[in-house]
Amino acid sequence: MTGADQAALDRRFMAAAIRLSRRNAGRTSTNPSVGTIIVRDDGAGPMIVGTGVTAVGGRPHAETEALAEAGDLASGATAYVTLEPCAHHGRTPPCANALVNAGIARVVGAATDPDPRVSGQGYAILRAAGVEVVEKVLAAEAAEQMAGYLIRSLKKRPEITLKLALSSDGKIGRRGSGQVAITGEIARREVYLMRAEADAILVGIGTALEDDPALTVRLPGLENRSPARIILDRQIRLPETSKLVSGVDRVPLYVAACPEADPHRRAALERAGVHFIGTETYESEVALPELLEDLAGLGMASVLVEGGAKVAKAFLEEELVDRIVLFQGPEAIGEDAIASPIDANHIPAGFRKLRDMRFGEDSYAEWIRP
Amino acid sequence: MTGADQAALDRRFMAAAIRLSRRNAGRTSTNPSVGTIIVRDDGAGPMIVGTGVTAVGGRPHAETEALAEAGDLASGATAYVTLEPCAHHGRTPPCANALVNAGIARVVGAATDPDPRVSGQGYAILRAAGVEVVEKVLAAEAAEQMAGYLIRSLKKRPEITLKLALSSDGKIGRRGSGQVAITGEIARREVYLMRAEADAILVGIGTALEDDPALTVRLPGLENRSPARIILDRQIRLPETSKLVSGVDRVPLYVAACPEADPHRRAALERAGVHFIGTETYESEVALPELLEDLAGLGMASVLVEGGAKVAKAFLEEELVDRIVLFQGPEAIGEDAIASPIDANHIPAGFRKLRDMRFGEDSYAEWIRP
Repeated sequence: MTGADQAALDRRFMAAAIRLSRRNAGRTSTNPSVGTIIVRDDGAGPMIVGTGVTAVGGRPHAETEALAEAGDLASGATAYVTLEPCAHHGRTPPCANALVNAGIARVVGAATDPDPRVSGQGYAILRAAGVEVVEKVLAAEAAEQMAGYLIRSLKKRPEITLKLALSSDGKIGRRGSGQVAITGEIARREVYLMRAEADAILVGIGTALEDDPALTVRLPGLENRSPARIILDRQIRLPETSKLVSGVDRVPLYVAACPEADPHRRAALERAGVHFIGTETYESEVALPELLEDLAGLGMASVLVEGGAKVAKAFLEEELVDRIVLFQGPEAIGEDAIASPIDANHIPAGFRKLRDMRFGEDSYAEWIRP
Repeated sequence: MTGADQAALDRRFMAAAIRLSRRNAGRTSTNPSVGTIIVRDDGAGPMIVGTGVTAVGGRPHAETEALAEAGDLASGATAYVTLEPCAHHGRTPPCANALVNAGIARVVGAATDPDPRVSGQGYAILRAAGVEVVEKVLAAEAAEQMAGYLIRSLKKRPEITLKLALSSDGKIGRRGSGQVAITGEIARREVYLMRAEADAILVGIGTALEDDPALTVRLPGLENRSPARIILDRQIRLPETSKLVSGVDRVPLYVAACPEADPHRRAALERAGVHFIGTETYESEVALPELLEDLAGLGMASVLVEGGAKVAKAFLEEELVDRIVLFQGPEAIGEDAIASPIDANHIPAGFRKLRDMRFGEDSYAEWIRP
């Protein structure tokens, strides 16, 4: 095989490993959802002998699963891994050593692990054992799949996705009307899927009071996949009678409040099972970088910001948004509308469009900042 | 004042700051509970002009609180801080800069922050601004108060306290008898206080099945302070009818299970609101170092291991215990007893006794490993 043929083959199997890695996205706790494919060629062309994805709950890692499936066939084979294999010892050997022990001859990797206990060391263990290593194959595509893990490791904050639903005239709601259905049922299901893959959903107290949302995943089979809800509520205005509070027995609810807020309101919500996160204040609002650092400390690697306009604007202005998702419905809102701080024609510099889709009558566009 | 007088004064105020720091222990999320005391001397002897402790929920930090109380009186004063002031910028200035901006002339610190974004840099900011800095005053005493934070930062695992209640003949229970009251009501209250200051309580599935414990804090005024419960349950044997599961609407419950466990059992518990943590297996048991790494990733800095004998033995053998607490009651269990893996006369090497106390008719002893 020529070098170019080999490189094309490597990209093809890595693309498959990246697709596989999506399977447990949002379900691997603080571990990233990684994919591994083990391929051997006994002369009749490449044959997949093992596949693995990080287990639900975060362990075992993908390499362990794929090696178990491959068994003796791993010897002399190539392993495609979407993230550098881990290198630090616990009770079980690190994945880099497990690949060596199984006789893997060649490892093709996509993203490099930024964790200082791994970074470069997983590859170094492999090379020291005589394993051929090819790094950074489809690295950007793999990084996009595990952006939460990488951003949390590198920036000590979760990946932030700003998601807004706009009317055809670019509005996000009508003043004083509560929740307004801007997009249709099919788009709503896509939002549930986005929620199911996030570690938390965040909204401002204005939206919580105006819309009384539940912020849960309401899709058959995914009812258990609702992430934590976080409300920016410096003065603790959230009522105990809200849907957010009444759902707290099933889905965790965090209120980010300043410590000077009314202790009686706080105690009442705590009795109802609400968790509090103490916040610093900056220009009369929650200081976002400090809050995000604390959320990362709680293990949250991906947060879906769902509004309202003021919160969206604050995240954009502080350059804390990594991904923008805009749904746009076919109807206009017209009078008394709440303007969106952003629309498809006014995306901040530094973002590039990743994809356009349609969900029923609604359009969908997504931008990321590398 | 002589140097020796000054050193004695510094120790005295630092001891007060350390006592103050205890106030919010267990309530500061992923931030350590730190104490700050600001003292000035206008010629008539030292006078405390501001005190602060990390706010419930983790922010603002202690320095911010103490500086706000001191106001203009902070200028030219000495600040006693139980942990090096933070040095990394968010939206609000780091505490090191806040101390400089307030005109603090001298900072006396106890523990150095192991966070790489702070370590030594908080002190460096102070010195660069001409502030006199004295480090490591009562450093060991301060470190003992914030052991969870320091161990999580340095070892990427929570601080582990092993707590066992022994009968006068050194047993921890009677086979097949469910929960046996070994200690009295006063000791039980002390256990509730220990639970309220921990981020999680951990027991094995054997104890969960045998005793059907709730593992909550049942003290008037502290009902909201129950930490998360973690059950080592590789094969998911925990019944939905257990007190642990039925309390899940108020207190989070994590089951550490291997991914091969029965998916129907898992789904049933997930429907009830139980969270799962995926585990590696080592010699047919949960691989503890990997599990503890994942718990640290979830923000847990202190875990109270409450048994049973097998789990206690495993943590001791793997040298994962930082603190041992033994209660001992006045009655013997005698026949069919479950032996303790440890007693006051057989504490592993490397531990030193910290204190002896009595709670009613029960004795209490505590050892730490530095």
